[in-house]
Amino acid sequence: MSDTSASSPTAPTDTVNDAAARPSLFDKCHQFFDPDGDYAKAKEADLYPYFRPIERNDGARAIMNGEEVVMAGSNNYLGLTSDPRVQEAAASSIKTYGTGCTGSRFLNGTLDLHLQLEERLADFMEAEACILYSTGYMTNMGVVQAIAGKGDMIFSDKDNHACIVAGTQMSYAETRRYRHNDLDHLEQMLERAHERHPDKGKLIATDGVFSMSGEIADVPRLISLARTYNAALMLDDAHAIGVIGPKGQGSASTYGRLQDVDLITGTFSKSFSSLGGFCVGDEDVIEYLRHESSPHIFSASMPPANVATVLKCLDILEEEPERLERLWEVSDYMREGFREQGFDVWDSETPIIPVVVGDMETCFRFWRDLLEEGVFVNAVVPPAVPKGQSLMRTSYMATHTDEDLDRILEAFYKVGTRHGVIGSNGVH
Amino acid sequence: MSDTSASSPTAPTDTVNDAAARPSLFDKCHQFFDPDGDYAKAKEADLYPYFRPIERNDGARAIMNGEEVVMAGSNNYLGLTSDPRVQEAAASSIKTYGTGCTGSRFLNGTLDLHLQLEERLADFMEAEACILYSTGYMTNMGVVQAIAGKGDMIFSDKDNHACIVAGTQMSYAETRRYRHNDLDHLEQMLERAHERHPDKGKLIATDGVFSMSGEIADVPRLISLARTYNAALMLDDAHAIGVIGPKGQGSASTYGRLQDVDLITGTFSKSFSSLGGFCVGDEDVIEYLRHESSPHIFSASMPPANVATVLKCLDILEEEPERLERLWEVSDYMREGFREQGFDVWDSETPIIPVVVGDMETCFRFWRDLLEEGVFVNAVVPPAVPKGQSLMRTSYMATHTDEDLDRILEAFYKVGTRHGVIGSNGVH
Repeated sequence: MSDTSASSPTAPTDTVNDAAARPSLFDKCHQFFDPDGDYAKAKEADLYPYFRPIERNDGARAIMNGEEVVMAGSNNYLGLTSDPRVQEAAASSIKTYGTGCTGSRFLNGTLDLHLQLEERLADFMEAEACILYSTGYMTNMGVVQAIAGKGDMIFSDKDNHACIVAGTQMSYAETRRYRHNDLDHLEQMLERAHERHPDKGKLIATDGVFSMSGEIADVPRLISLARTYNAALMLDDAHAIGVIGPKGQGSASTYGRLQDVDLITGTFSKSFSSLGGFCVGDEDVIEYLRHESSPHIFSASMPPANVATVLKCLDILEEEPERLERLWEVSDYMREGFREQGFDVWDSETPIIPVVVGDMETCFRFWRDLLEEGVFVNAVVPPAVPKGQSLMRTSYMATHTDEDLDRILEAFYKVGTRHGVIGSNGVH
Repeated sequence: MSDTSASSPTAPTDTVNDAAARPSLFDKCHQFFDPDGDYAKAKEADLYPYFRPIERNDGARAIMNGEEVVMAGSNNYLGLTSDPRVQEAAASSIKTYGTGCTGSRFLNGTLDLHLQLEERLADFMEAEACILYSTGYMTNMGVVQAIAGKGDMIFSDKDNHACIVAGTQMSYAETRRYRHNDLDHLEQMLERAHERHPDKGKLIATDGVFSMSGEIADVPRLISLARTYNAALMLDDAHAIGVIGPKGQGSASTYGRLQDVDLITGTFSKSFSSLGGFCVGDEDVIEYLRHESSPHIFSASMPPANVATVLKCLDILEEEPERLERLWEVSDYMREGFREQGFDVWDSETPIIPVVVGDMETCFRFWRDLLEEGVFVNAVVPPAVPKGQSLMRTSYMATHTDEDLDRILEAFYKVGTRHGVIGSNGVH
């Protein structure tokens, strides 16, 4: 590389300011690790519940720290990450197309496989067209940012996923956030906006299923508000497609209103056992996104194995409807079980079931005690939830056995009574 | 799902505003496809060079539209997407860990494999620590957005990749864009900022290798400016790591200055044949990113096969240094070849070699004629390049054979003379 180095006009051979101070930009990083702060204390007591490595993952069971655990903290709703047919489809695509595409869909990273998947998903969602993104995060961010631009307005639920928030930050549209699930509040905002700015383009963006609480959005009223105020409606169905609705078509389909939503987004890192995401909508809107949505145009496309995985999961979802039935059965059983034991599970209606345990310290200890009982869940603390409502986010899959479920309930009963979250007279 | 549907407080069974107009938000989408515009005309004449599907990809050769082409338009610099060892590593990881992680690094998507890769990359880049992101796009966006916040200032090269721009849009820091590669202009900005806002945190962000021109940034002067004005320096080495430097350690390593850059980012969708990205830096800065960088925390983690692919590519990069040597040899040969034929290749110093052809229409026709000659490259038009400087972006890999290279040069000579871009007395 000497020719490259020599071609630089001003390459000095020694350093002028060797003793320069560390940039003050990094002061915040140093301060973050305050030894008296929550983070440092939890780490020291080995109570820190995040970034815990998994050594083997077979879906409903996994190996962590050398021990087998029941997995009740994933988004592997259909349990297909370990399905041999899915694994085989992924492995075989690697032989034909290689391990990666090394370029964007726009320039050199479009495979016939990507076009197949877009067509399959448009059909599955009964929409005109579909666009893929390489992650679910980039999907929502890229759709919101491109479709709502300068001069437009975005109305966003306060509990929307971080990637919708990222889209509003990137967008040059004005953003208003309405109180979580408070559609009266949304209507006030829309009414005012409609009076003052009748000509501005308007987008309502909301999760179809909220990721921490498992609640389903009130899609019929959202459709009605969108129509009354000439707004477009976008649903993020990351936790809904392949999960709820008679065929797994997501939140709008549970109300029979699939045709009445303008844009529906989904992810591949949950029911579809892969990585990536998609948006369905009208042909011209999707084609516009292909040319105007930065994370679609300027990011490398989905690798072949990631695409082949989703295609096979779609086959299985369509051919084996009993998987969805089992998933709902499992979820109903667990919701009922927790309620019987005396736990507060909020208004969950899906395979996401929050179990409220109280303050942050209890939450961390509760989480570690469950792990010691062989059950892995997600610890969720403020600001993701209100103060004093720290919770165990539990989530279920079609491949959980009855034995898995009872082991989870027993562990919660044991740890819940130990921490006084439920009375010892809770029945199971 | 009838219970779910029934639980909605206001689900109407019929629609109130069935005849509602299409939201005005979508007017821009309809207008984009103006039948008299460039897009519609190019599509109609089958000259549209984007989103062309690949049916099989073996690295240096691919099948498009049923015909074999020489691939001179990928970022597959080491040619490893089709290496059997890499393919085997990817396929075998699927058996142990499944096809996807169905969760974020933060909550339930950390595998021991992710930790291994972070450690390997920190060692490879001679840095304290490393953080992975699931795409290269999210890497730069996530680092810039988290490290430069409210009250900080960002100084960004005008030709930086779109994902750095996305990071500045998401960030609440003030952003200034300096003229491409004009470090005098950058210095003026830094000087003024240093006088007026001495206490504000400052970040200089630049591509290490520019993706369209193949130029290398003047890293030594950037280091010197960063030190003088107490700014942090971040290099996006997406097109540099696994490509340039004696061991493939990227742009700073070509100047022997790897230790003097605060943050270096890289991608896995180029030399590393996968999808994803990473950032290396000091331990506390990286740990801060793990807790404050939205696309790291709120996006599903890299699937097992994507991680295993990178680990194997790193092995090969370290064990077979002759691959890098071949890559430079190939690049020098092609640069020389194009120059001899009379083409303008700007100041390329890397395996990215732009070949200027003129206006947009010539560019589209040139591109299609090359494809008919069996050579695939990328057509790049304004605003990505200045008006009248539309170009064929060509890029090379270690696995291109001498025969591939001569086929590319012959095709360019033939098409270049046909379109009058070079005189017919150009010698090859």
